[in-house]
Amino acid sequence: MRAFHIAQFGLENLRAVEIPKPVPRAGEVLIRVHAVSLNFRDLLMVRGHYDPKLLLPRIPASDGAGEIVEVGPGVPRLRVGDRVTGLFLQNWREGAPSAAKSKGALGGDIDGMLAEYVVLPEDGVALFPQHLSYVEASTLPCAALTAWNALIEVCRIGPGSNVVIQGTGGVSIFALQFAKLAGARVLGTSSSDEKLAKAKQLGLDAGLNYRQQPEWSRWVKEQTGGEGADVIVEVGGGGTFSESMKAVRIGGAITQIGVLTGGEEKLSLHPILMRQLRIAGIYVGSRAMMLAMNRAIGQHKLVPAIDRVFPFAQAPDAYRHLETGNHFGKIVIGDGVQ
Amino acid sequence: MRAFHIAQFGLENLRAVEIPKPVPRAGEVLIRVHAVSLNFRDLLMVRGHYDPKLLLPRIPASDGAGEIVEVGPGVPRLRVGDRVTGLFLQNWREGAPSAAKSKGALGGDIDGMLAEYVVLPEDGVALFPQHLSYVEASTLPCAALTAWNALIEVCRIGPGSNVVIQGTGGVSIFALQFAKLAGARVLGTSSSDEKLAKAKQLGLDAGLNYRQQPEWSRWVKEQTGGEGADVIVEVGGGGTFSESMKAVRIGGAITQIGVLTGGEEKLSLHPILMRQLRIAGIYVGSRAMMLAMNRAIGQHKLVPAIDRVFPFAQAPDAYRHLETGNHFGKIVIGDGVQ
Amino acid sequence: MRAFHIAQFGLENLRAVEIPKPVPRAGEVLIRVHAVSLNFRDLLMVRGHYDPKLLLPRIPASDGAGEIVEVGPGVPRLRVGDRVTGLFLQNWREGAPSAAKSKGALGGDIDGMLAEYVVLPEDGVALFPQHLSYVEASTLPCAALTAWNALIEVCRIGPGSNVVIQGTGGVSIFALQFAKLAGARVLGTSSSDEKLAKAKQLGLDAGLNYRQQPEWSRWVKEQTGGEGADVIVEVGGGGTFSESMKAVRIGGAITQIGVLTGGEEKLSLHPILMRQLRIAGIYVGSRAMMLAMNRAIGQHKLVPAIDRVFPFAQAPDAYRHLETGNHFGKIVIGDGVQ
Amino acid sequence: MRAFHIAQFGLENLRAVEIPKPVPRAGEVLIRVHAVSLNFRDLLMVRGHYDPKLLLPRIPASDGAGEIVEVGPGVPRLRVGDRVTGLFLQNWREGAPSAAKSKGALGGDIDGMLAEYVVLPEDGVALFPQHLSYVEASTLPCAALTAWNALIEVCRIGPGSNVVIQGTGGVSIFALQFAKLAGARVLGTSSSDEKLAKAKQLGLDAGLNYRQQPEWSRWVKEQTGGEGADVIVEVGGGGTFSESMKAVRIGGAITQIGVLTGGEEKLSLHPILMRQLRIAGIYVGSRAMMLAMNRAIGQHKLVPAIDRVFPFAQAPDAYRHLETGNHFGKIVIGDGVQ
Repeated sequence: MRAFHIAQFGLENLRAVEIPKPVPRAGEVLIRVHAVSLNFRDLLMVRGHYDPKLLLPRIPASDGAGEIVEVGPGVPRLRVGDRVTGLFLQNWREGAPSAAKSKGALGGDIDGMLAEYVVLPEDGVALFPQHLSYVEASTLPCAALTAWNALIEVCRIGPGSNVVIQGTGGVSIFALQFAKLAGARVLGTSSSDEKLAKAKQLGLDAGLNYRQQPEWSRWVKEQTGGEGADVIVEVGGGGTFSESMKAVRIGGAITQIGVLTGGEEKLSLHPILMRQLRIAGIYVGSRAMMLAMNRAIGQHKLVPAIDRVFPFAQAPDAYRHLETGNHFGKIVIGDGVQ
Repeated sequence: MRAFHIAQFGLENLRAVEIPKPVPRAGEVLIRVHAVSLNFRDLLMVRGHYDPKLLLPRIPASDGAGEIVEVGPGVPRLRVGDRVTGLFLQNWREGAPSAAKSKGALGGDIDGMLAEYVVLPEDGVALFPQHLSYVEASTLPCAALTAWNALIEVCRIGPGSNVVIQGTGGVSIFALQFAKLAGARVLGTSSSDEKLAKAKQLGLDAGLNYRQQPEWSRWVKEQTGGEGADVIVEVGGGGTFSESMKAVRIGGAITQIGVLTGGEEKLSLHPILMRQLRIAGIYVGSRAMMLAMNRAIGQHKLVPAIDRVFPFAQAPDAYRHLETGNHFGKIVIGDGVQ
Repeated sequence: MRAFHIAQFGLENLRAVEIPKPVPRAGEVLIRVHAVSLNFRDLLMVRGHYDPKLLLPRIPASDGAGEIVEVGPGVPRLRVGDRVTGLFLQNWREGAPSAAKSKGALGGDIDGMLAEYVVLPEDGVALFPQHLSYVEASTLPCAALTAWNALIEVCRIGPGSNVVIQGTGGVSIFALQFAKLAGARVLGTSSSDEKLAKAKQLGLDAGLNYRQQPEWSRWVKEQTGGEGADVIVEVGGGGTFSESMKAVRIGGAITQIGVLTGGEEKLSLHPILMRQLRIAGIYVGSRAMMLAMNRAIGQHKLVPAIDRVFPFAQAPDAYRHLETGNHFGKIVIGDGVQ
Repeated sequence: MRAFHIAQFGLENLRAVEIPKPVPRAGEVLIRVHAVSLNFRDLLMVRGHYDPKLLLPRIPASDGAGEIVEVGPGVPRLRVGDRVTGLFLQNWREGAPSAAKSKGALGGDIDGMLAEYVVLPEDGVALFPQHLSYVEASTLPCAALTAWNALIEVCRIGPGSNVVIQGTGGVSIFALQFAKLAGARVLGTSSSDEKLAKAKQLGLDAGLNYRQQPEWSRWVKEQTGGEGADVIVEVGGGGTFSESMKAVRIGGAITQIGVLTGGEEKLSLHPILMRQLRIAGIYVGSRAMMLAMNRAIGQHKLVPAIDRVFPFAQAPDAYRHLETGNHFGKIVIGDGVQ
């Protein structure tokens, strides 16, 4: 079968290879992958910036959807023809996180989804909602689940909550969509009026082009009667965290999910104390959360925002498009099967 | 009556003055103050480092205990002779924090307790447990309530929880005492073997002199089977936060309560995300929390750790003793009345 | 001014009387009441079935909306012209419930809203969302807040939750509306196909006429993939509780809010244990909850379902209409002012 | 090997049999059982009152402790010589309960522990704290975990909480011990002054012989300043539930764990609503809860209260002793191995 390998670090070393098709053992299933969606993590991974000790060669990409084409012995709940995605964290089934559960991420700790066929254990996959195509479903394991975990599981937003999203990347747009499902009001920042306009079509209640007002926390306070937002979905890392600490209300929450910048930054911890902030690091989510999210997506017939689909053979071009930062929603690599 | 004034910033400007005795109006009570305990905040306040815009002159100190000697009209629940402390945050009665509730702190936003007489509204005081002296009770409003809020209200520790305290200041020792009441295991760091020995007498399960092992997170991991602690009571601010992020378990909590350092520090936010940390800023607590804490203190006959008591006239010496950092537990200014 | 009095128990003894217009004292406001909405409690109260020891005469009705026409001294946050409702529980501002907070209900412990003018303390009223008329706003203090407390505060439903409502009374219809705001799926039972059709216009996802299938728990299980519902909003009391215990999923919640029947009934407690049920008694809610609810109602421009409006002079007819059980949504007594 | 079988319902039909020793397959371990403790459920099971459709013959008893003597392939975390108990619910690993997780109870849905050897899957056992004997550890899977789940996981009691236990059976005494670990105050009722005296040795703060005051809710209110208890650990079922609804404070919790009576009883649901009660059905607990409980037991060197130990051959006598209700703490069947 064909797959892509990170042979060495660097996007130029992401190469199509011919390797043996894997075989499912007891408790496992074989998936014919039809779509793979990219996260910024995948770009960092290929560059060697995410995990410099990554074992190479490695099949990249955590997020993929496909059809089960073979079922190993002892798999009572799945059958050939089922439409599934993988789970980002193969070992986090449910309950509180732990060191053990944090290991086993697709496209990092273990081989990922950018291959024609993938073998995963029965509990390492999830059926996806029937109204979704493979392309759409491929976006769920990382970006969607991260947003769901942050807003619905951890922050438990509801009708009347004020939520701030930053930019229009994959997690941010899912955060927008889930926040609207839950009845919240969503404020968003972007450097592009065009992207803000698109976000408004998905339900964004108010948008700010932060090029015009870099101190966007003031705008958030104006929009929330002076109090600040209940939740900030913090994806920017470095530059934005200090501003987020001002934009959130006293006692409000910042969900830290960004891996955009890995370096240190100068921070004053004083506002955390005086403003009684809650900061919650979000690392994707568990299988139980994914099932709950899929139930909600299915009920509401929610459709992920897809920026562009690249053919399998042009996977490196998809990475390059991600690199530009010009996308809105998710970038997907697909084979055209619906 | 006599009181102390911060006439200008600087400990040398903390002066005894003679001012009119206040008179309780409707809904208020007059308290004869018998003991005042100091927090590091009080030292920063006198120096002008806590709030450079503080209105001067200001009666300092948030924490005091005394006897009600006069009751204004319309105060059904209190009477002359009641033994009470003030509440640090006069406007936070209960429920979630807010901007309005965060204002009205004694010895900062409004005049404090370092005076012979103080007038407070009925809901701005709390009866203290009967087994405590005025000196002991004076330590409850800020240091004790901060520790209670962090461990019992926010982190909800219980039997089997692993808690880390830093040093042996007021909040840390209350955190030790409350954590033991709740059945937790408590690990502590200090620069002094002598202080660690004293802390063990109060229940500390294991102690580390961090001068011998500055990377104390390694020790915490060893003590917790490699997982890390459930909760870190972070008081050190600057230097210790990065170490705390390593010492806490995946999904564990850091309660940020220190005002020891106000400056910026270089931090990597990456561990917050990857280790799914929960960081919670704690700013003292509400009246409802104080009543719950007092109930527990009374039930267990818990006695605050007192370092030393200074006579009222020597209040500035008490501040100087706090400045040395040589104390264990609380420094109190008292008039000798039990 | 004119008001209604429960002179003696019995609807025939609900009489219009002429009494002195009340005068606001310090901390109070005078409200010109423009609309009063009825709850089943109000009917039980007039009959003497709710509280046989009710002090008579008593002005009935907990829920009313009006305009502030005079403000006593010391009321910084309200002014003449403000559009407000009363709070059902005058003493529950926020935080956990208590015995003291459970007292002071309008139209029961103290005089209610069925009068031309009412005086309430500043914290005993709440501004209502601007898009609502007095008639619409009058429905919020009891029925709406009870539904909000049950679903949003206590059960914390969200996208994908399955909620069951019983019938089409005031609380049930608000529960439907709030559940839809929060992204839940709502199943409802009724004895009337016509009412189910109306409920579907408000968002009901599926309805069952229980006359055709009295064991409605089977239908709920069919509708939820065999698992049962996450939350049952139990209003029927007596006859329905056993069925609710079957209709809820393992680990799910029954919110007990009905006062429709006050008597004892035979119940097996066994399913509570074996099915790990959570049963939560809901008694209206706090001021803080009301403010949160109003924020959500205002954000979503939610409009309460009004069955019929009666003129003030015909208030007893409104009670009689409530008695028939033929209503859908709220029955209101109003003076025509918008 | 020898085992006991419920051949037919009725204690007289509980018979020692000789059956083949089981063999562990992949993922399983073979346990040499050294102690089995009894719960009231086990008595009901033998009588046929717990599950009339129980498949016979059935090896009874859910709770046992032993040594691993053989390990099947693919069991990385356990080894020969490990001291373990079984888990009551073999399928509830962690997270929220579900229908699937509620199945697979030892000594009911599947064969239990009253045998010389038992085979269980790796995740169906738990290492027990090192300071415990087999006899002591055998009491943990059902009685201890039920009490832990009720008080620590669901009700989250802490210092200052008021907890009521009923009688001195296994769950009640564990509830007493865990409540004391967590810093709570514990009130208890019993029909025996002698048992109350024993309970006081284990930490009971106050006891009432309910033969002298059947309306024990009055006593609880007196003991709690008129408010009522925070949590009632309700084991009596039938007769006591109405009294529990009076004894708990407004907004307090009743944890329903008793299977002592299975029938219906007349109840008024009205207090649930008006007193805002929380009723929580507790059905043992998950593996994750068991590990947390064991961590706390190990930390505190808590020792279960053992009433009496019967030799394996006299197992039916142990059931008869349970039938008398004269025990205090747990009744165990053991082979003398420590």
